[in-house]
Amino acid sequence: MPFSIHNLPYGVFNIGKQTHIGVAFGNDILDLTLCDALGFIDAPSFKNQWVFTHNNLNRLISLGATAWAELRSNIQFLLSDAQSPLQLDAENKAKVMVSQGSVQMKLPLHIGDYTDFYAAKAHAQRVGELFRGAAAALNENWLQMPIAYHGRSSSIVVSGSPVYRPQGIYQTENGLVFDKTKALDFELEAGFIIGAPNKRGQAIAIQDANGHIFGACLLNDWSARDIQRFEYQPLGPFLGKNFCTTISPWIVPFAALVDCQVPLSPQHPSPLPHLQWQDDFSLDIAYEVQFKSDKMQMPITLCKSNHQDLYWSPAQMLTHHSSNGCNLKVGDILGTGTISGAATTAQGCLLEITQNGTQPFMLPTGESRIYLEDGDTVTLSATAKGKHGDIYFGECVGVIC
Amino acid sequence: MPFSIHNLPYGVFNIGKQTHIGVAFGNDILDLTLCDALGFIDAPSFKNQWVFTHNNLNRLISLGATAWAELRSNIQFLLSDAQSPLQLDAENKAKVMVSQGSVQMKLPLHIGDYTDFYAAKAHAQRVGELFRGAAAALNENWLQMPIAYHGRSSSIVVSGSPVYRPQGIYQTENGLVFDKTKALDFELEAGFIIGAPNKRGQAIAIQDANGHIFGACLLNDWSARDIQRFEYQPLGPFLGKNFCTTISPWIVPFAALVDCQVPLSPQHPSPLPHLQWQDDFSLDIAYEVQFKSDKMQMPITLCKSNHQDLYWSPAQMLTHHSSNGCNLKVGDILGTGTISGAATTAQGCLLEITQNGTQPFMLPTGESRIYLEDGDTVTLSATAKGKHGDIYFGECVGVIC
Repeated sequence: MPFSIHNLPYGVFNIGKQTHIGVAFGNDILDLTLCDALGFIDAPSFKNQWVFTHNNLNRLISLGATAWAELRSNIQFLLSDAQSPLQLDAENKAKVMVSQGSVQMKLPLHIGDYTDFYAAKAHAQRVGELFRGAAAALNENWLQMPIAYHGRSSSIVVSGSPVYRPQGIYQTENGLVFDKTKALDFELEAGFIIGAPNKRGQAIAIQDANGHIFGACLLNDWSARDIQRFEYQPLGPFLGKNFCTTISPWIVPFAALVDCQVPLSPQHPSPLPHLQWQDDFSLDIAYEVQFKSDKMQMPITLCKSNHQDLYWSPAQMLTHHSSNGCNLKVGDILGTGTISGAATTAQGCLLEITQNGTQPFMLPTGESRIYLEDGDTVTLSATAKGKHGDIYFGECVGVIC
Repeated sequence: MPFSIHNLPYGVFNIGKQTHIGVAFGNDILDLTLCDALGFIDAPSFKNQWVFTHNNLNRLISLGATAWAELRSNIQFLLSDAQSPLQLDAENKAKVMVSQGSVQMKLPLHIGDYTDFYAAKAHAQRVGELFRGAAAALNENWLQMPIAYHGRSSSIVVSGSPVYRPQGIYQTENGLVFDKTKALDFELEAGFIIGAPNKRGQAIAIQDANGHIFGACLLNDWSARDIQRFEYQPLGPFLGKNFCTTISPWIVPFAALVDCQVPLSPQHPSPLPHLQWQDDFSLDIAYEVQFKSDKMQMPITLCKSNHQDLYWSPAQMLTHHSSNGCNLKVGDILGTGTISGAATTAQGCLLEITQNGTQPFMLPTGESRIYLEDGDTVTLSATAKGKHGDIYFGECVGVIC
């Protein structure tokens, strides 16, 4: 699916030996680094800032919300107005429009800290039942605040990077072993990118929270369920998660999602006052997980869910995170947690789909799966439904090896 | 206590408007940035590397173990040999020896990821009893591997930085509130600094683990127990911890601790083979916590413990961390967890000392404490016992505000 003029997600790519910044448009990339060098960028906040020669988006993002709006407007003009300097210069236009297929996408951000929430009620409920039984499935705290933990930023990689099957300590019928995981899983998530920092000790009020978000991407929080199960009490997931997290290469601007805002479902019990905002919203983003073994010709769809399956809003997650004075920095990622809905077709990880490996599913090749095997490919994708058309997130792909 | 020639810890400091790198010696700092500019540094690996003009230690550390040894040897020669170029140049010697009291110490590292272990059995046992009752105090996994979780790197600050009392959600007699914590605590810890990275997917063997450690520092993992208690299940501590972590300004080289190695106490059950190494060791480091309210003239000692109170060795923690292929990066910090011993005088946090606020302790002023109040000062310090004398870690100070 091509990227529309109402989307214009940012990414970082290698072209030859150089690293450039660009925005996706159609099936191409507008090379912003080259555009700037050729004098096409006309956005006052970017003058003499050299953000386009940096090898990630952090400097660009650090210029702030006014600069984001200027650049977005300038790019829309360059791409869509027949009288723009870019459209009137066919020779240079051919240079700055690069085919997406011809370049290698890079991790677009320097990610200082990565936080992972747990915000879908259906997911928390099902996983809680599988790990702790129905009675203890949903802790008392879950409905009071967006529960989260810190993940590992060093092992966040861009879509297409290999996913190495981790070793770890886990229980088997023959006792405790240290071996390769037998329960490798994906988790369908979105990630929100911090665009404006707060100082340590200064909480962000919920009505200001969305102004701190630069954009969104897809995120696959690969998980080894056997390792996770043995280690996670009392301090939470660690080696069962931190071996790899994959994000999509394109950061969809939060501004592009304005048209996709939908009312946040009522929350019972009511959140405490600092997590309440009358204008709070969820987003109408349709997510999908596709799966392909190396014997399959075509992928099958494992999950279709929607951002509205998340109980907590982006603003509530960010507000909660900063409410104790924790300082968020430009480029930090807040993962939503697995986006699962109530339907059995809307389960965002194999732990749910196979009920912790007890209910295998069949593949067209006659193979079956309970967890991921080597050679398997998992592809996340998403499309937000906006008034001006679809906002496509691109793909977040990982192959197990 | 002065820093000896056998110690030579690295730090970063502001001198005027500039940021320099130095080593502590006696009550002074040898300004390595100035030494290098004046041509005193004679260590081949550092030629044309410009590590001393960087504003943290990461580039220096990234040069690797051979470079660390060269520089350490060169500095010892410069400081102790009467015929060294530094000793023969009184004018420049006066310039490069800076009084510690005249400069402001800075956070010495760019810390990508911060991991916090939970490696003292007495601490895990006592906290487990207080949070979950005696029967569930120590999980089955605790004796099988060094339990850890990811902390927050953005809020790690250098000694002396203010510690802002966090707000958060917690249970009171009147129900759930969002308010300032009433249970602010310190945690006495050491931190080990990663000096050599591993690639994602490549585990570090235990016999190689110590070669990946650059040095050690003190670490105060400030904790809000009421917030922590309500939030920490099932994904572990989050806002109860991530508002602030303080480290000492001086990174004691692991090479300086060679003389302080002592046999690791026998572990029952035996760890799995990948966590066993016949030459593994603990360290003889004496830790101390001092406390002063703003009404007190002199501090009192709240805790004296020893590195040998930790069940798991530095090598075991690092090996476990990388065992799933998680990539560790230069500058990452591994905290040990609270260093508490069996004795009541060796409890490294107030949660233990006051039995979760039920047993207040009296101060010389007639005040009492269960948890920290505004204006309170907590000072961690440590001294390793080596064959060539004491290796001092300096202080890690925080004042509550």
